[in-house]
Amino acid sequence: MDRIGILTGGGDAPGLNAVIRAVVKTAAGVYGIDVTGIRDGFEGLVRPDGVFQLTPDKVRGILPRGGTILGAANRGNPFAIRTVVDSEVQIVDASDQVQKHIEDLGLDALIVVGGDGTLRISLELFEKGCPIIGVPKTIDNDISGTEITFGFDTAVSMATEAIDRLHTTAEAHHRVMVLELMGRDAGFIALQAGVSGGADVILIPEIPFSYPSIARKIRERAEEGRTFSIIAAAEGAYPAGEQQVYQDGESASQQSRLGGIGAEVAEEISRLCGVEARVTVLGYLQRGGSPTCFDRWLATRYGAAAVRLANQHRFGRMVCLQGGVVGDISLAEALAEPKRVGLHGESILTARGLGICLGD
Amino acid sequence: MDRIGILTGGGDAPGLNAVIRAVVKTAAGVYGIDVTGIRDGFEGLVRPDGVFQLTPDKVRGILPRGGTILGAANRGNPFAIRTVVDSEVQIVDASDQVQKHIEDLGLDALIVVGGDGTLRISLELFEKGCPIIGVPKTIDNDISGTEITFGFDTAVSMATEAIDRLHTTAEAHHRVMVLELMGRDAGFIALQAGVSGGADVILIPEIPFSYPSIARKIRERAEEGRTFSIIAAAEGAYPAGEQQVYQDGESASQQSRLGGIGAEVAEEISRLCGVEARVTVLGYLQRGGSPTCFDRWLATRYGAAAVRLANQHRFGRMVCLQGGVVGDISLAEALAEPKRVGLHGESILTARGLGICLGD
Amino acid sequence: MDRIGILTGGGDAPGLNAVIRAVVKTAAGVYGIDVTGIRDGFEGLVRPDGVFQLTPDKVRGILPRGGTILGAANRGNPFAIRTVVDSEVQIVDASDQVQKHIEDLGLDALIVVGGDGTLRISLELFEKGCPIIGVPKTIDNDISGTEITFGFDTAVSMATEAIDRLHTTAEAHHRVMVLELMGRDAGFIALQAGVSGGADVILIPEIPFSYPSIARKIRERAEEGRTFSIIAAAEGAYPAGEQQVYQDGESASQQSRLGGIGAEVAEEISRLCGVEARVTVLGYLQRGGSPTCFDRWLATRYGAAAVRLANQHRFGRMVCLQGGVVGDISLAEALAEPKRVGLHGESILTARGLGICLGD
Amino acid sequence: MDRIGILTGGGDAPGLNAVIRAVVKTAAGVYGIDVTGIRDGFEGLVRPDGVFQLTPDKVRGILPRGGTILGAANRGNPFAIRTVVDSEVQIVDASDQVQKHIEDLGLDALIVVGGDGTLRISLELFEKGCPIIGVPKTIDNDISGTEITFGFDTAVSMATEAIDRLHTTAEAHHRVMVLELMGRDAGFIALQAGVSGGADVILIPEIPFSYPSIARKIRERAEEGRTFSIIAAAEGAYPAGEQQVYQDGESASQQSRLGGIGAEVAEEISRLCGVEARVTVLGYLQRGGSPTCFDRWLATRYGAAAVRLANQHRFGRMVCLQGGVVGDISLAEALAEPKRVGLHGESILTARGLGICLGD
Repeated sequence: MDRIGILTGGGDAPGLNAVIRAVVKTAAGVYGIDVTGIRDGFEGLVRPDGVFQLTPDKVRGILPRGGTILGAANRGNPFAIRTVVDSEVQIVDASDQVQKHIEDLGLDALIVVGGDGTLRISLELFEKGCPIIGVPKTIDNDISGTEITFGFDTAVSMATEAIDRLHTTAEAHHRVMVLELMGRDAGFIALQAGVSGGADVILIPEIPFSYPSIARKIRERAEEGRTFSIIAAAEGAYPAGEQQVYQDGESASQQSRLGGIGAEVAEEISRLCGVEARVTVLGYLQRGGSPTCFDRWLATRYGAAAVRLANQHRFGRMVCLQGGVVGDISLAEALAEPKRVGLHGESILTARGLGICLGD
Repeated sequence: MDRIGILTGGGDAPGLNAVIRAVVKTAAGVYGIDVTGIRDGFEGLVRPDGVFQLTPDKVRGILPRGGTILGAANRGNPFAIRTVVDSEVQIVDASDQVQKHIEDLGLDALIVVGGDGTLRISLELFEKGCPIIGVPKTIDNDISGTEITFGFDTAVSMATEAIDRLHTTAEAHHRVMVLELMGRDAGFIALQAGVSGGADVILIPEIPFSYPSIARKIRERAEEGRTFSIIAAAEGAYPAGEQQVYQDGESASQQSRLGGIGAEVAEEISRLCGVEARVTVLGYLQRGGSPTCFDRWLATRYGAAAVRLANQHRFGRMVCLQGGVVGDISLAEALAEPKRVGLHGESILTARGLGICLGD
Repeated sequence: MDRIGILTGGGDAPGLNAVIRAVVKTAAGVYGIDVTGIRDGFEGLVRPDGVFQLTPDKVRGILPRGGTILGAANRGNPFAIRTVVDSEVQIVDASDQVQKHIEDLGLDALIVVGGDGTLRISLELFEKGCPIIGVPKTIDNDISGTEITFGFDTAVSMATEAIDRLHTTAEAHHRVMVLELMGRDAGFIALQAGVSGGADVILIPEIPFSYPSIARKIRERAEEGRTFSIIAAAEGAYPAGEQQVYQDGESASQQSRLGGIGAEVAEEISRLCGVEARVTVLGYLQRGGSPTCFDRWLATRYGAAAVRLANQHRFGRMVCLQGGVVGDISLAEALAEPKRVGLHGESILTARGLGICLGD
Repeated sequence: MDRIGILTGGGDAPGLNAVIRAVVKTAAGVYGIDVTGIRDGFEGLVRPDGVFQLTPDKVRGILPRGGTILGAANRGNPFAIRTVVDSEVQIVDASDQVQKHIEDLGLDALIVVGGDGTLRISLELFEKGCPIIGVPKTIDNDISGTEITFGFDTAVSMATEAIDRLHTTAEAHHRVMVLELMGRDAGFIALQAGVSGGADVILIPEIPFSYPSIARKIRERAEEGRTFSIIAAAEGAYPAGEQQVYQDGESASQQSRLGGIGAEVAEEISRLCGVEARVTVLGYLQRGGSPTCFDRWLATRYGAAAVRLANQHRFGRMVCLQGGVVGDISLAEALAEPKRVGLHGESILTARGLGICLGD
């Protein structure tokens, strides 16, 4: 093996640079493998200036930095590229071209760091014959092939800090504070940050909620003389009986959706309980900044493990965390079904036991 | 002097508890003065259960905590209390009642910790004969009688951290990130956090902005190969030629105003420059949480100085910071005119010199 | 089950209060069980004023706080209590008295939160017939019955932050900076913080080191123009061929040992390489402060799980983390052998692959 | 004015990079002046490879970073350079050579960022005719010509965080925790961090202390049922009647002095009061890491102001903070006498009023 490529796709996640650094240092130091950096996700494989030599000096000092020195693009599915021909939008399959480009670049392996969407594309490319190794990346922790992924701990940290900050204001001003957090389909961030921050109500997409149930909790607290409450709501949470609605593409909360679920909950609870309620949408603050040590440690191990897999020609595999140890799993298996908060698992049991209202 | 009262009014600000603690410890330890805590701002002086003995053990451990153990209310002007009589709203002057209550409680002095609004009420009460000592509190730093007040440094810290976090995502995703910050009339938070975080554009209420000017800056950066930009916008910033609009009462940004200036700027810049632009509204996160050491230090000195002033019967004075030292100033003078960012001061000169676009 | 007791033993660890809070809230809310708080570890079971009713209002607001509201004592093994009789120190077995006291207090279960030492005592008490449930607590992560325990993530976070801080000074001043971290027998903190902070050399007790090997690494870096280096050293690290020496009882680093291994390494490397080298001993800063969200989340789940186990009369069990999920294991099995960094595991493989010198 | 040089001297301080960045951006953007970077303090002016072109792209991204991209050296007084000639150490005056080098490099101004020592050298160079502009930098805040300097706020923040962390452990374990902080001659860090962290005893060089006085405070607290105490001690604090002793050159605490004042206080108090006492030496952690927003803001304004002064040929001046505004003062005046904590100022008055023991 002489050369491997690496690209990062999808939304931002703290730890991407730690993966890149570990890949480059491990490839160069242990195996004498050169690394090609690919810019802006799969886009870098279909445009002329999309690659560059990723030498060890280019990754110096990036370990504690958020973002990705490779750039990332939310678009760029090579199986469905939008082009405009004669003023008409056409969807073109450029996967053959990508495959050929991988060969022309002399890449003996391609490490793809990305979330569910990016990894599904990677699986298709692998099935076409590309030498893919996957590295899972998701703020939401919604990939089932691994216990956890990097970026999630940093997101939950920021969310917990936000709850800590809202707490004192809520208490001093006798208010209900709603914090809208990421999580369109999976409520892990809201659940863990909510429990860690001491929220009174936690709303997640897995459990459609009812306003009367929330209102009852607020009133119970008021009767105990607790004149404030904290509600942590995943952006994908929705009232039972209604349809979950959010915009296509990037998650709703990131788009600073006007009238998101947080604002709706604040308004409705204010109306039902006759209290002041305010909403804060945490948005992008969950995605950026220096990764926590947990995420740096995990991302670094993922990068190193990905190079080892590549060197063993174990293509079509994804690195993962199992029993606290970094291992690997087939991409197909890892993506077979998405990960969701288990309704009868110990996390939910714990939250209910603490007296937290889950909206049902 | 046997007894002093203390109340906190207006919006939340980190450092309120540090003031309260310093007042109680100094009063008890140095002068043997008892302290009466008044609940929820001036409201505590017009309702039956509004006061309690504030003994030293009640202030233990509160120094690093945000919020106020006294509670605060945004309403509660005793000169204009809204009451409903026969289904009709009436504005009643309860200031005589408040003054009598202060006497009945045996308060030889009343320390009022609050912002512009609360301090103006305090000045009126002082002019009626109440033994008032003022302590300035404003997140926005808009009180001219003092170089700075507590709460501001914590707010700027959070705002700067937010810019740091947005930076890496902006860079990785080639985006314009707009951060909407507090500051309805004064742009200090946006200016200082913007400079400290390395923002490319800073919009403040003191300088009405033009979209073409911002767009020019974004494009200049793109031409230099800098495919991302950070815009720090005070909530009260507005386009030249338009009217500054925000809702009454609490500041717009805190109400998570749908379609605030941040969202408007993001949308317009996206349209003008053909780039992806996103907005984050920091809101309440600027008001809560543990105060920085700067704010703890200043708030503690303010509390101690207020007791010294009270003991000297120097009523109608406000503690303040002058030349880095805690002194005092008459409330009337301190409130004579509001503080704004000086358009020709060294702060603005510095920002322009760094190449930051101020929108004009 | 009517009543359970809880005590915390051994050194401080962020997350203890989160366990206590979860125990009290879960016991009261789900099962209607009363909780008795026991002061200062097992000491509270042998002295008159050692217990108090732990009602839900006593655990309000303690979730984000370090330390333990129950107090902890490093001494207090009821099987070997030191007493002075006629000026002579005698070791007395008070375990019968403790067992009787547990019965007299009406405790149907006793939840013990502690490290290796405290849990071994608990196992003995269980074997005598006491209804013990164990909750593992160790900063060092050296308990083998669980993937990880609370407190560790906070300690590694502080250690990683310290490396980040030392980095810039090392670089600006062309120095070798040595950071001495906790870990007498297990090097997990040094290994994870070292990798997460980008250390160049990591010394752990599991791998006796050689000075020439470290010096070689420093010189290699100098030849590449890297005029600074960071060394993360566990307090229990020692040179190959020598005996590992540290003082009895509390860990050496905590005692701010004069001439600890950090200082020794700094001096020796300075001599061997002709560079300036400085040492920082992190000590107690690793044990205190607000727990990270990871530790709050884990500690809360442990507390809740411990109450469930107690309610099921599953005594002699310890809660633990397995595959990312909270489960339980017998105390005897959990303590059978201590946990150490695996010399051929993927963590060490990763560190070596990154080019980090492990001293061998 | 065509070209200015910049160097950073003395110990590390967060904010140096912010000054450098502001100098380069302001010089290039406003005045079209080129900047020459000088490596490792004055050393860069006496060695061949000591300078390089400091273009705007070289200062990108350095604002939030600690350290200095120019490097710094603690030695390097051009008026007294140590050289070894024929095995004998000789002190050589190289100031003429430095002055000539400044001319040869075509530097129309030289901005020197440094502490007391570096600025005194600069004053001498100015008096010889060199076009010097000074920027004060001191962690200890001991330069009297300015209200405050950058680096200090970051140091106090870290020190306050450390006290917060020690607090919970002290309380849980019923201990006296001693934190040794920087401050050889001036006690500002210990005083402000001590007050901000809620220390019970604060020891500073300006007030020689007595052990019985400290012991009395510890015992008073014990009698009130407060079984723990926090002591913040500046490294230069010393017992009344003894000589203040510390090693030459870099401050004692930084050298991780074995047996520093912190350890001595812990030992003596343990002996006098019969309590467990532990010491933590914060050392270098106060000097490194990302600057606080306060320090970024001040350092940026200093850098911009220094370029303005240079452009006006106002040599021999030092930028400073006066009344919260950046101004300037003559170097000679600024250095006339060192700054110390005022024994009768409001800071000390406040600390005493809070019941803090200052050791006297």
